[in-house]
Amino acid sequence: MEKLKEYVSVKDEDHFYHQGAVELLIFNFLLILTILTIWLFKNHRFRFLHETGGAMLYGLVMGLIIRYVTKSPDVESGTVYECEKLKSGPSTLLINITNQVYEYQYKREISHHNVNGHQGNTMLQKMTFDPSIFFNILLPPIIFHAGYSLKKRHFFRNLGSILTYAFLGTAISCIVIGLIMYGFVKAMVHIGQLKQWEFHFTDCLFFGSLMSATDPVTVLAIFHELNVDTDLYTLLFGESVLNDAVAIVLTHSISIYSPKENPNAFDAAAFFQSVGNFLGIFAGSFAMGSSYAVVTALISFMHLTKFTKLCEFPMLETGLFFLLSWSAFLSAEAAGLTGIVAVLFCGVTQAHYTYNNLSADSKMRTKQLFEFMNFLAENVIFCYMGLALFTFQNHIFNPLFIFGALVAVFVARASNIYPLSFLLNLGRKQKIPRTFQHMMMFSGLRGAIAFALAIRDTDSQPKQMMFTTALLVVFFTVWVCGGGTTAMLTWLQIRSVLVGVDPDEDLKARAASQSAPNLDKNTTKAESAWLFRIWYGFDHKYLKPLLTHAGPPLTSTLPEWCNPVARILTSPRAYGDQLKDGDTVYIINNDELTENYESSAHIAVPAQDSTASTQATGKEDIQEGDLGLGGYKLQIQHAAGQPQENSLA
Amino acid sequence: MEKLKEYVSVKDEDHFYHQGAVELLIFNFLLILTILTIWLFKNHRFRFLHETGGAMLYGLVMGLIIRYVTKSPDVESGTVYECEKLKSGPSTLLINITNQVYEYQYKREISHHNVNGHQGNTMLQKMTFDPSIFFNILLPPIIFHAGYSLKKRHFFRNLGSILTYAFLGTAISCIVIGLIMYGFVKAMVHIGQLKQWEFHFTDCLFFGSLMSATDPVTVLAIFHELNVDTDLYTLLFGESVLNDAVAIVLTHSISIYSPKENPNAFDAAAFFQSVGNFLGIFAGSFAMGSSYAVVTALISFMHLTKFTKLCEFPMLETGLFFLLSWSAFLSAEAAGLTGIVAVLFCGVTQAHYTYNNLSADSKMRTKQLFEFMNFLAENVIFCYMGLALFTFQNHIFNPLFIFGALVAVFVARASNIYPLSFLLNLGRKQKIPRTFQHMMMFSGLRGAIAFALAIRDTDSQPKQMMFTTALLVVFFTVWVCGGGTTAMLTWLQIRSVLVGVDPDEDLKARAASQSAPNLDKNTTKAESAWLFRIWYGFDHKYLKPLLTHAGPPLTSTLPEWCNPVARILTSPRAYGDQLKDGDTVYIINNDELTENYESSAHIAVPAQDSTASTQATGKEDIQEGDLGLGGYKLQIQHAAGQPQENSLA
Repeated sequence: MEKLKEYVSVKDEDHFYHQGAVELLIFNFLLILTILTIWLFKNHRFRFLHETGGAMLYGLVMGLIIRYVTKSPDVESGTVYECEKLKSGPSTLLINITNQVYEYQYKREISHHNVNGHQGNTMLQKMTFDPSIFFNILLPPIIFHAGYSLKKRHFFRNLGSILTYAFLGTAISCIVIGLIMYGFVKAMVHIGQLKQWEFHFTDCLFFGSLMSATDPVTVLAIFHELNVDTDLYTLLFGESVLNDAVAIVLTHSISIYSPKENPNAFDAAAFFQSVGNFLGIFAGSFAMGSSYAVVTALISFMHLTKFTKLCEFPMLETGLFFLLSWSAFLSAEAAGLTGIVAVLFCGVTQAHYTYNNLSADSKMRTKQLFEFMNFLAENVIFCYMGLALFTFQNHIFNPLFIFGALVAVFVARASNIYPLSFLLNLGRKQKIPRTFQHMMMFSGLRGAIAFALAIRDTDSQPKQMMFTTALLVVFFTVWVCGGGTTAMLTWLQIRSVLVGVDPDEDLKARAASQSAPNLDKNTTKAESAWLFRIWYGFDHKYLKPLLTHAGPPLTSTLPEWCNPVARILTSPRAYGDQLKDGDTVYIINNDELTENYESSAHIAVPAQDSTASTQATGKEDIQEGDLGLGGYKLQIQHAAGQPQENSLA
Repeated sequence: MEKLKEYVSVKDEDHFYHQGAVELLIFNFLLILTILTIWLFKNHRFRFLHETGGAMLYGLVMGLIIRYVTKSPDVESGTVYECEKLKSGPSTLLINITNQVYEYQYKREISHHNVNGHQGNTMLQKMTFDPSIFFNILLPPIIFHAGYSLKKRHFFRNLGSILTYAFLGTAISCIVIGLIMYGFVKAMVHIGQLKQWEFHFTDCLFFGSLMSATDPVTVLAIFHELNVDTDLYTLLFGESVLNDAVAIVLTHSISIYSPKENPNAFDAAAFFQSVGNFLGIFAGSFAMGSSYAVVTALISFMHLTKFTKLCEFPMLETGLFFLLSWSAFLSAEAAGLTGIVAVLFCGVTQAHYTYNNLSADSKMRTKQLFEFMNFLAENVIFCYMGLALFTFQNHIFNPLFIFGALVAVFVARASNIYPLSFLLNLGRKQKIPRTFQHMMMFSGLRGAIAFALAIRDTDSQPKQMMFTTALLVVFFTVWVCGGGTTAMLTWLQIRSVLVGVDPDEDLKARAASQSAPNLDKNTTKAESAWLFRIWYGFDHKYLKPLLTHAGPPLTSTLPEWCNPVARILTSPRAYGDQLKDGDTVYIINNDELTENYESSAHIAVPAQDSTASTQATGKEDIQEGDLGLGGYKLQIQHAAGQPQENSLA
């Protein structure tokens, strides 16, 4: 008898260890299918369904199968046990069942109305993974990759507009969605679909903030493929990257906004506390992310005399880079800040400083590693979204609410893009044309972040309704807007390979315009505000020399009395570089410049009139080499040391 | 009041989402420390402490800190609750506590004696992660990398010996350890330290099987660095790779060996069932792993006329490669086989077939990706081993048992290596010298696999004692044997850069011997048994042409009536290759051959006498290019098409 029990327990244990294998296998299978589909699509130049849309579709089908094929729930499921002795829920519960002690781990608190039969179907349950996995494992590589692959020159040239769309635009979008949804909720209460007390205005704002996170990954992939106008690409990419960060912090701030008495009344103190929270969390996360990146830059830059440089061990270098970037995320989370924001700015800073110190091998390794992780994480999330429609057990479908959300999302996008573009155009020399505005309006897709924010909390009924609605909005925008991108580009006549742009001709035009690179001096000058000029000066004079091998030696930029310190801190390479490049290289670094020169004669220069700007060629190097920034007249000279014209004011 | 509760619940939830961040941060911190230490060591050419030893040391210190600095357990911990209504432990338990329903997830069954105060210290608990993470996440990349980086030529040349050590040797080791431990257990019972019924002979054998998994990662890293004799390297590496697989399956078979009546009596039926299990699981896992690799090879090789080859999208290719390899593991686990064995043979097969079909970009990407994952996983495991000494809560330290285990491990290693080497030397032309045997004896380190197998089951007291003992044996062998490797190499006068081998001279010798590459015909011929000759013939004639671009076209190897099928299945490249390379290229593939020729004039050839064999130069390409296999006289000619001498029998 004893032996038999032992045998059974071993068998149980076996089952326990194989747990997880089946679920992971399902995801692997879906991802493999997705990859094969992408391959097929690439062969047929089929652009109506992006890989993420495909992944979502496969997830949906798999969810349907799991839902209706796996065995029905156990008899015991849904039974709630009483325990008088327990006063609160401990994190670990030891329970004595027929003289055998079992250990149970606290999972979550559930509302009474969620206790239903499906709770017990283990397969459905296992396929629903912990939301913290999204935040700790899947999102960081995606966000880091976005920051790391930001096209710095175009990004900084449009920084003002991007910040306006990201901060002001997201706030507008949040409020507009909140107001419209509140109207719909009132209407639903009126026709008796909803009880008033279930849905406060703060809930509507919460929904507004999570639905404000745009994720045009599908659109950007198509832009990249079709060589769509770089400025449009940058505006959209920059906006969506920063907007995620804003939406996440906004959601967090709203969720802890708690007026003391009537939840519907406006409480000024609580409101300002929320605004303070927002600013504090944002600034703290920014500081945390950047400082980790600076530490990485310093370590990778270290040139102690007795030490071999770290870059001679590419594996260690990549490892350190990866671990420190992830630590930025984890430290921010552990400190109660927002890890996603930290990892985003960590990525941007790493790309700006650390990247320049890496060995050529590590540059490629890190880029490929993050690209790969981004690819996997993105497709896992979209697969999971498809799955969630059928495997999530507490959906609340409310047609009116869903319809309201779709309306709200589009109205909010419109009241974000059009008014802000109008305002921005008042100040911009190079206007944002109407067609770009329409395209940006159309590209307001919702994706991974909105989903992750919605799935974070699905305990109460309003939150469940929000989750269901958010999921459907994601489906709708990804399939409809994502699928219609090419059609829209053609219809709006936006410069791309589809609309009258021959990539070869374009390159020729750029090569030709190389002889007159100073024409756009006025346009760029107007856009670089004094703030950024100061920042660039500081960055160039102090940070770049301190953290990278580029820039002038600190001995020449710091006051004379700092010389002893400056000499220690300056890379020996900086002195050599100074002779070659002088002060012209502000944002791009020497390595990239030299590389560009050696690899291609087509150094891209800004286009000659203000409407026809440069194209997204898909070649990062050309775009990075594209100068013309910050009010300085830049003239690229061959690195071999020709006399340089330098109009630094 | 209601608001307040909501506020608290949000705070709780926040805490919930930040959970995991601190623990991951601790691991990140330990890994960063380890990387910085490795960097320091590499600078000082310090070889006494390998990175894994360092990681373990840091883990140990961190474990000590966590143990004694974190707050003492909650008051409630250790309390066992009664629940009369429950008849068995459901996977999800819903419990009503003060009118709030909480969901609890089944974690494990624990024995009454394990219910102690430490159970409730959440920090200690969180740092102890689920053993299934080892098996599903951390071990697969390590084992796959081992298979993928196997040096095929040397491995196959020594295959007979390696298989003998791995299968027969591991079995001997398991039985010897089991017998010695049984002796110690009897003695302990005699002096009253142990109750007889606690420890059966099968438990001793179980301990023997898990302690038989050697992991000389430290030693191999040093061998690699010091250019130690390639044959010794290959013997040790091959043995340890296969031996892991054997030990895992053996442990599994012993754990399900269940004689019907007296557990100490020998039950022939149960024994043969176990042997049958062993063979079945091993063969099944082997088949599963290989077939996934074959599928990958087929996909990456596909050359349908209308399709672009997959290798034109390196990211997709890498993704598919990664996912299919992982699926091999997961499928085997899901099917009740051993995933580790499957992923090992998947790696070997991928290296043999798929690798040749990959684009140059993907070759590098996959290699770097797996190298990186291996690096991280290995260091995480060794950190965790250090941590476990203090964070694991149910250690049972029994000095006599620990002493017994140390004795048993060394005696078992000796009775594995020396008798088997003696037997093998009877058949080998190129004997295994005494010094090699001593070195192999000394390199019997225990590591990740032994630890993972021991931590899998720590419920009963005997299992806890085994786990504690296994952990200490790992510490001892890694620090003492790992640290003493260089000293041992010098003392045994084994060929390496330490002992009279100048790497430059060695290269010169090789270049010189290039003109007479046929001298070792006899030695290699003797070692390549008929079985392998048949296998190579089959592999070369049918599998290689079917799965890769190398080898002769199928049209020439298959009977004439198969021609229509053969023509479809053969790569167009195969025809071209045939003209250039003919039948000479048996194990290495064309790409590598050409590459070697173009990149270096030092094509390595087998050394001229049987005792002085080639050295592990650390350059995979040279070793791969190193021909002289399978009883065929090989003469490398420049690929440009000089007349070839071909002595194919």
